[in-house]
Amino acid sequence: MSILRSFTAALLGLGVFAGPALADGHLDAAVKARKAHMQLYAFNLGQLGGMAKGEIDYDAAAAGAAAANLADLAAMNQARYWPEGSDNFAMGEETRTLPALWDNIDDVMKISGDLEEATTALASAAGQDLDSLRAALGDVGKACGACHEDYRQSND
Amino acid sequence: MSILRSFTAALLGLGVFAGPALADGHLDAAVKARKAHMQLYAFNLGQLGGMAKGEIDYDAAAAGAAAANLADLAAMNQARYWPEGSDNFAMGEETRTLPALWDNIDDVMKISGDLEEATTALASAAGQDLDSLRAALGDVGKACGACHEDYRQSND
Repeated sequence: MSILRSFTAALLGLGVFAGPALADGHLDAAVKARKAHMQLYAFNLGQLGGMAKGEIDYDAAAAGAAAANLADLAAMNQARYWPEGSDNFAMGEETRTLPALWDNIDDVMKISGDLEEATTALASAAGQDLDSLRAALGDVGKACGACHEDYRQSND
Repeated sequence: MSILRSFTAALLGLGVFAGPALADGHLDAAVKARKAHMQLYAFNLGQLGGMAKGEIDYDAAAAGAAAANLADLAAMNQARYWPEGSDNFAMGEETRTLPALWDNIDDVMKISGDLEEATTALASAAGQDLDSLRAALGDVGKACGACHEDYRQSND
């Protein structure tokens, strides 16, 4: 049994979610929380990407702070964001998370570990100089993309 | 010059925000980011508060994870969330942040430090037992309330 499944099962076993109304509120809150978390990734990545592209002047302190934020975010415990039943088949347009995520938890956790590793490296590199920042951004983008490609509904 | 003011001034000095349209986008992004951050506080606090009130069975691992998330969130660099001009007088209903926040940055930073300290203590206490969790929640609530009372528009 996967971590997320067992976590959800444990919550269900507690009788925390007594009926559909409560369950929906729980699912809505989880979706909102993971969207908030993604938004904070985007906010910090946006600044670093702007520097990498030369759209924003490189600032070592600001780059280091944004990269440290990313590493903190990636290391946070996110198990409660992904209860079963919070996929886009069950919830419709409220979320773009595909049901496949719950069928491939080992892969998801592997990508999550890759993101943590890449953001930790970025946090070391970003405040050094622009070339170091640029070099370290690639692996972060790869980890983001790996999850989005397989487990997020395309907008196309 | 306060940290936030000098940070904003530095960004303006870079010419990053060339005109009203870009400036608005920057302010909107900052407001969304701070709302996302607050939502993650609420998501993690909700679980801990539910345990403290007896609405959710106490679970040491889950409590410890949620409290660690709060401590990580409180320690993150949030300077870019609060550019000048992103108060509710300037931006209307998009935000409830009062202009007073920018006039009292020392107090805001003091409360921010209190929150970081209180969440660090909570992260140590929450996984021990329910009484420790309950005892440590009080100071977290005080720090949240201190900022909301003085710098957030009341809903009344």
